[in-house]
Amino acid sequence: MEAPAAKPVLCVAAICGSIRKASWHRGLIRAAAEVCEESIPGLRVDDVDVADLPMLNTDLETDGGRGFPPAVEAFRAKVRDADCFLFASPEYNYSITSPLKNALDWASRGVNCWADKPAAIVCAGGNFGGGRSSYHLRQVGVFLDIHFLNKPELFVFAFDDPDRFFDADGNLIHAETRERLGQVLLSLQAFTLRLQNKD
Amino acid sequence: MEAPAAKPVLCVAAICGSIRKASWHRGLIRAAAEVCEESIPGLRVDDVDVADLPMLNTDLETDGGRGFPPAVEAFRAKVRDADCFLFASPEYNYSITSPLKNALDWASRGVNCWADKPAAIVCAGGNFGGGRSSYHLRQVGVFLDIHFLNKPELFVFAFDDPDRFFDADGNLIHAETRERLGQVLLSLQAFTLRLQNKD
Amino acid sequence: MEAPAAKPVLCVAAICGSIRKASWHRGLIRAAAEVCEESIPGLRVDDVDVADLPMLNTDLETDGGRGFPPAVEAFRAKVRDADCFLFASPEYNYSITSPLKNALDWASRGVNCWADKPAAIVCAGGNFGGGRSSYHLRQVGVFLDIHFLNKPELFVFAFDDPDRFFDADGNLIHAETRERLGQVLLSLQAFTLRLQNKD
Amino acid sequence: MEAPAAKPVLCVAAICGSIRKASWHRGLIRAAAEVCEESIPGLRVDDVDVADLPMLNTDLETDGGRGFPPAVEAFRAKVRDADCFLFASPEYNYSITSPLKNALDWASRGVNCWADKPAAIVCAGGNFGGGRSSYHLRQVGVFLDIHFLNKPELFVFAFDDPDRFFDADGNLIHAETRERLGQVLLSLQAFTLRLQNKD
Repeated sequence: MEAPAAKPVLCVAAICGSIRKASWHRGLIRAAAEVCEESIPGLRVDDVDVADLPMLNTDLETDGGRGFPPAVEAFRAKVRDADCFLFASPEYNYSITSPLKNALDWASRGVNCWADKPAAIVCAGGNFGGGRSSYHLRQVGVFLDIHFLNKPELFVFAFDDPDRFFDADGNLIHAETRERLGQVLLSLQAFTLRLQNKD
Repeated sequence: MEAPAAKPVLCVAAICGSIRKASWHRGLIRAAAEVCEESIPGLRVDDVDVADLPMLNTDLETDGGRGFPPAVEAFRAKVRDADCFLFASPEYNYSITSPLKNALDWASRGVNCWADKPAAIVCAGGNFGGGRSSYHLRQVGVFLDIHFLNKPELFVFAFDDPDRFFDADGNLIHAETRERLGQVLLSLQAFTLRLQNKD
Repeated sequence: MEAPAAKPVLCVAAICGSIRKASWHRGLIRAAAEVCEESIPGLRVDDVDVADLPMLNTDLETDGGRGFPPAVEAFRAKVRDADCFLFASPEYNYSITSPLKNALDWASRGVNCWADKPAAIVCAGGNFGGGRSSYHLRQVGVFLDIHFLNKPELFVFAFDDPDRFFDADGNLIHAETRERLGQVLLSLQAFTLRLQNKD
Repeated sequence: MEAPAAKPVLCVAAICGSIRKASWHRGLIRAAAEVCEESIPGLRVDDVDVADLPMLNTDLETDGGRGFPPAVEAFRAKVRDADCFLFASPEYNYSITSPLKNALDWASRGVNCWADKPAAIVCAGGNFGGGRSSYHLRQVGVFLDIHFLNKPELFVFAFDDPDRFFDADGNLIHAETRERLGQVLLSLQAFTLRLQNKD
């Protein structure tokens, strides 16, 4: 009698659009990692840091556009190796942040590392819960060939009463948001398996 | 008999979304400066460099959000002192670039330095001539309270035959595009005077 | 001694994106008309109905694109005669409604009736208060050469507790929203005078 | 010996955003139907007319939002029965057309008929080949839970020399565009089978 095949473990590369230390969006990623560990077998979140990437400048490329600065190479490898992505995307001035756009662009140069993989977006913020950034990010995804989850969308409307949602270090402390984050992750897992034809 | 009042000279802060050396968009800004000097009295283009700005990180702010790193302070002062703006905005992956978004965000922190001033956008690129970036930039402008010129829009469809438009150093060498760039600048001048109630 | 010139009365053509009878957005327009009558001298709101416009079909145009069906001609005349616009724009499926898009398009055919006039947008709705529609509308305005007010934006977050905001006939009954609507109208008046060089 | 299982025939509901008779976009749909018949086994295009739909007005709904006017019911049934969608989407004033938005909205009311199905977009037009409409349509698709193909995008840059692309009746006569349309359809077929887990 054969043992059942081990369930594949999908790796979610999680990318935070803010590089400040106590970022709420980094807190969302930490919470996502915990939720997976606690209750979503087969899904693992890797927090991929983008703070050390140089500002996008194609003059830094070498070898006819196939070589990149070491920090960029390392980042590109993590994107390439992931099964899917979780973007924690703050809204700055009604669009995505520069650290996030910078990361998106570096991993698209030459061989596009994002191609044909699913992704989810989570946002926290003011009157639209950071949501305006998500639609710009989705348009970027058309060219990068990212398959964004349509639903559920997670917008954390946190400005009116931040302390209900995040502590001073940016940790998510709001149970209902954690629950909804779990739903996003389950949908991302299901969509990834579906696109990989493994569900 | 009184001498006629001297025409005010309007200062256009020109901001390039690419920081590579031979950037076409920097070439568009150089051309804009030349066009003004040659044929648009009352309008002067200042190329405002954004390459030295650190990546947006509010942890770098001091004095309760009123102090900024020196490069940021210097940039903010130039934005604050300008009458209007010219954005030379490349399209990277269907949106604006990280150096441009970074500059937009730094000058919006605390006291918003962009507020209530007119701006024009010029783009060069592939199938949409870089144009997708312009609509994301316009949405950013809603929050920053920038009054974007509606017309004329300038998209340089340069990918099919780049050498017709730019030389190897990124200089604009296409007479018709130069002419159209002049029209953008004249419209920017007229719109600025109108909003300043000086036309 | 001359009498002071009478203040010009600016006409706001108000256009509702919903054609159902008890529409909240029509209620916002009624409230705007009342607010002007009560407390904003020099500003008058005309509710311009778009329910009778045929679906956009350029086969209905006559005289080489200069003639239109009677309902369209009448609508175009009202747009042409207005000093500025107030769009009450619901969000249907993350964009503007078909009745609104239809109206926008009919008045743009041949001679563009919207050109070079200011406008404000007000929205009511669900999680973004109807706001996603406003950014699509703003992009339409680039081509139509409408000068949209940047601030204040008015989004009425009405889904959670509709009865606080509107009665069963769609009348606005929420004092604070009425106050904010007044601020939008004052800003629209000031921006219109500024663009007409009369402030 | 078993006969091989018959390949499933996927039904593409094709929806044209223009209702004029000689529409280029209707021509693109006719060409898509021909291409499928000639060379894509397993894919069939049904041109779904939207010209007879009333303008969206929820007052026309009956039975607590479950009943619709007959033309709407018929349209909704075709959307519900399709495996995937082809939108031929003109750009009017930098966005989608009212007939298309109207159709999108009617089939979303009550039980959303678009949900969880793949779709492709083809556009023809001026400087962006009609492309601005496609990004607004994609944002609508987020709420409607449509899975849009990222690539290939098809924009027909037809304004400069229309006669190369379409005849006076709107028939597509440009071989290369027909070839690219075929690529879109093949990708749509593959993506649909992948999402249905049948590839």
